[in-house]
Amino acid sequence: MSNRTAILLITCQDQKGLVARVSGFIHDFGGNILDSDHHTDRETGDFLMRTVFDLEGFQVPAEEIETAFRPIAKVHDMNFQIHISDRKPNVGILVSQYDHCLVDVLQRFRRGELAIEIPVIISNHQTAEWWARAFEIPFQYFPVQPGEKAKQERQVLDSLHSVGVDLVVLARYMQILTETFLQQVGCPVINIHHSFLPAFVGAKPYHQAYDRGVKIIGATAHYATAELDEGPIIEQDVVRVGHRDTVQDLIRKGRDLEVMVFARAIRLHIERRVLVYGRKTVVFD
Amino acid sequence: MSNRTAILLITCQDQKGLVARVSGFIHDFGGNILDSDHHTDRETGDFLMRTVFDLEGFQVPAEEIETAFRPIAKVHDMNFQIHISDRKPNVGILVSQYDHCLVDVLQRFRRGELAIEIPVIISNHQTAEWWARAFEIPFQYFPVQPGEKAKQERQVLDSLHSVGVDLVVLARYMQILTETFLQQVGCPVINIHHSFLPAFVGAKPYHQAYDRGVKIIGATAHYATAELDEGPIIEQDVVRVGHRDTVQDLIRKGRDLEVMVFARAIRLHIERRVLVYGRKTVVFD
Amino acid sequence: MSNRTAILLITCQDQKGLVARVSGFIHDFGGNILDSDHHTDRETGDFLMRTVFDLEGFQVPAEEIETAFRPIAKVHDMNFQIHISDRKPNVGILVSQYDHCLVDVLQRFRRGELAIEIPVIISNHQTAEWWARAFEIPFQYFPVQPGEKAKQERQVLDSLHSVGVDLVVLARYMQILTETFLQQVGCPVINIHHSFLPAFVGAKPYHQAYDRGVKIIGATAHYATAELDEGPIIEQDVVRVGHRDTVQDLIRKGRDLEVMVFARAIRLHIERRVLVYGRKTVVFD
Amino acid sequence: MSNRTAILLITCQDQKGLVARVSGFIHDFGGNILDSDHHTDRETGDFLMRTVFDLEGFQVPAEEIETAFRPIAKVHDMNFQIHISDRKPNVGILVSQYDHCLVDVLQRFRRGELAIEIPVIISNHQTAEWWARAFEIPFQYFPVQPGEKAKQERQVLDSLHSVGVDLVVLARYMQILTETFLQQVGCPVINIHHSFLPAFVGAKPYHQAYDRGVKIIGATAHYATAELDEGPIIEQDVVRVGHRDTVQDLIRKGRDLEVMVFARAIRLHIERRVLVYGRKTVVFD
Repeated sequence: MSNRTAILLITCQDQKGLVARVSGFIHDFGGNILDSDHHTDRETGDFLMRTVFDLEGFQVPAEEIETAFRPIAKVHDMNFQIHISDRKPNVGILVSQYDHCLVDVLQRFRRGELAIEIPVIISNHQTAEWWARAFEIPFQYFPVQPGEKAKQERQVLDSLHSVGVDLVVLARYMQILTETFLQQVGCPVINIHHSFLPAFVGAKPYHQAYDRGVKIIGATAHYATAELDEGPIIEQDVVRVGHRDTVQDLIRKGRDLEVMVFARAIRLHIERRVLVYGRKTVVFD
Repeated sequence: MSNRTAILLITCQDQKGLVARVSGFIHDFGGNILDSDHHTDRETGDFLMRTVFDLEGFQVPAEEIETAFRPIAKVHDMNFQIHISDRKPNVGILVSQYDHCLVDVLQRFRRGELAIEIPVIISNHQTAEWWARAFEIPFQYFPVQPGEKAKQERQVLDSLHSVGVDLVVLARYMQILTETFLQQVGCPVINIHHSFLPAFVGAKPYHQAYDRGVKIIGATAHYATAELDEGPIIEQDVVRVGHRDTVQDLIRKGRDLEVMVFARAIRLHIERRVLVYGRKTVVFD
Repeated sequence: MSNRTAILLITCQDQKGLVARVSGFIHDFGGNILDSDHHTDRETGDFLMRTVFDLEGFQVPAEEIETAFRPIAKVHDMNFQIHISDRKPNVGILVSQYDHCLVDVLQRFRRGELAIEIPVIISNHQTAEWWARAFEIPFQYFPVQPGEKAKQERQVLDSLHSVGVDLVVLARYMQILTETFLQQVGCPVINIHHSFLPAFVGAKPYHQAYDRGVKIIGATAHYATAELDEGPIIEQDVVRVGHRDTVQDLIRKGRDLEVMVFARAIRLHIERRVLVYGRKTVVFD
Repeated sequence: MSNRTAILLITCQDQKGLVARVSGFIHDFGGNILDSDHHTDRETGDFLMRTVFDLEGFQVPAEEIETAFRPIAKVHDMNFQIHISDRKPNVGILVSQYDHCLVDVLQRFRRGELAIEIPVIISNHQTAEWWARAFEIPFQYFPVQPGEKAKQERQVLDSLHSVGVDLVVLARYMQILTETFLQQVGCPVINIHHSFLPAFVGAKPYHQAYDRGVKIIGATAHYATAELDEGPIIEQDVVRVGHRDTVQDLIRKGRDLEVMVFARAIRLHIERRVLVYGRKTVVFD
């Protein structure tokens, strides 16, 4: 699979013949389907599809595929996107004081495990600067002054817009983003929440879990929406805890969970395996 | 470990020398500790201990151990219980229409995996009767007539009291037990809730989980208290779900979870491995 | 999905246009694809596909679909099978002394969770007879006399052939089946092995695991082949163990694993989600 | 628990009164037991115990505890060790080309999660040097020239001895250590093997797992012994894989497993929670 490939993402209302239509389109132009998956939600009637095909031998140039497919999309009233494999998405990272998710993404990036560019790391604290410098990534420090949250959000937005990002990831960014921010950022935002949502929404979830005496804790990666911790869930995972675990142990065990769940969610997103519909996701893994 | 053993359970405020005191007591009378575990909650100062010792060679007869230990308990202001291994607890089962947890307990019981007696199965439906008859267990049918819930609870209580039970287990019993019932039943009550508490409290948790789009579902066994789904948690477990899973699939996958979590909780309880303090448990496994 | 559906299973060498061809065939006759999945093994060039489509509105009668599809299969040199949803497969159960897997399958069957018929339970011991009678299933007892293993296998085969089975499941059947048996039985055979294969092949895997001091034990469901414990793996699962667990605890924990892995493998098989190629499986779940 | 604590580790043959003796010793000198756990292997008769007690108020100075306890140890023929909490162990890291385990340990170390010192990183490749420099740890490069493996082992030993190490960890060090090396290194050596041992011993375990078609892969941390991959297991974990996963996917998923299992094993070891007996471990977690 070293060749260039195209990923075609489709969402529409379920109709007869959709798979035949899409696979026919690719076959008719000499393409070869490498991977294809689709899902129909029988309750809502939503149809979602992800198809990967080889551009080698495909008779339509990559930049014209969108135009070529548009008539089909129109007939079936489809939303669709085409992604070409050789373009790495720009990912902006927002982080506060806890740096484990940040460091994990950086070391995966450096090792080449994540096919992304990281044009900027932005923080409301200075603790992350050491890591930014070690990994040679531009760092921006925008503290939140009392009563000036709107100004700081403006600075963050300007910084993201100036470098151009396709995705923003919140690597334990402890500021609640306003609806205005989310509307203006212009790309998806992935957050990692340190609980098994919907359990323990909001602040200090490990303390909440400790007080309730649960036997398992979790972490959840989701798209950020205006409703706190209510966005579509991309990935979750859990780990067992017991009465010997203090809150500090929960925080320590939780860090490893957060790191893994966050990294998996980013990979799933940049491989275009996640489609959102309603408040849910379909994950074609 | 075919010998008779004693299990000594202690809860008190943490003090210096408790372990030395308890192990000294056993050693001084020629006993041999087979297993011992204790826990100190550093926040609350609670001390909890479970010690198993061989009765072979122990110089105090089983029925006098309580008297022999009482002076020590008094000095340290301990709550304590002594359980002798050769007495099987009587477990009353309450069940409604879904029978998977019931059947699972019954087959473990028949195979000798659970060292219990089951003097009665009680239900507000008749569906469980087939299983009761197959396993040769007495069955009582007490339907809930509109406006006569109190009367039915009275019937259930009378039935449990007449056979004498040490534990009641709710094998998907879909009636909410009143505070009165819980006060009068006279023994612990274990419930299995079909979600990963505290997520999805109350009715139809699988439907709630489906609507929220979670990637993992769970089951929780807990002691029933007057607050619905808020009792001390004994055991939890989870299973992965995906967008292909319908509500029916969640229910099917959840059944297997419920069965396992319920069976583990019952085993932990009857082996006296669970100590409750506040709204939490310590599980010495 | 209460309608009748058809499942079309295909294996062949990978070629361009296969998905388009199959989905085109279904669409051209007015069918609606409910679920479709395929896999290409890039190393071996194997292509495997499973497509479920609604028979409601499909212009070819169920019994003629095979004939209608054969020309396409011939062009692409495909192996294919058509399964119609309203025919329940006949499953013969072989069991020895340990009865937990047997009981688990029986209670799922009785509850309607497994869409199968069970025409016969066969054992080389009499312990399973109690369960067979409780669930009202015919039981055959064929003990293995010294030096007469071939004769006993003949009896088992005759019994299976006389009732007609589509699948044989070995619910902890402790006799090694000969190559002759496997050739003559005429249907797939699913075995449950009580270890995480390929670790601990052969006898007493829990004892082997205990001696090695592993921290996790497992169970494996696989198709039986002439090479012991080497058949294509359908499903595996694991559970944590620790130094406190004796061999008896491993056996107890392992039972719950075996039951779950066995039941999942049977469900996957009867839903036609498992395709074998080489010594591996593709599981479309 | 910010106070200084002592950890007392004991192994001996099981005898009556051991717990009473040890807890009595601590209590008699005014100590307070913070945590205590013990295990008796009923087959071998081995008794293993770990007791943590507060040094605050303990009447024997830390450096004299060993002398004070020796008479008791002699009476019961115990092997014992005393560890004082404020001394961080020196951990030498050996690594080859794959750097994920190295980087993970380094970032935990820098964050203060692992209470260790890292006096040296040693490698037979130069790839790790970038990380050593970024984290400001001394780096030694000792390549293995054909026919000169003994010489290179000598260099590694000299380097470790010159800085003084309490533990050596093999962070995917791809050279097999000789028996001579293990005898002369003078401290425990922890290895991470990229399979679920004892499955897939030796080279290229992910390729072996792929070829066998397993549904779950694993990683194992164990003490290195002269027999390859046969040392006492400290920790294992697993992750699900499927037919869509290529060997490269197994390697990628396996990296995350290796990192977690390796980090947990190191933490368990430095917290003195692991006791070896025979070819097994007891892990007091």
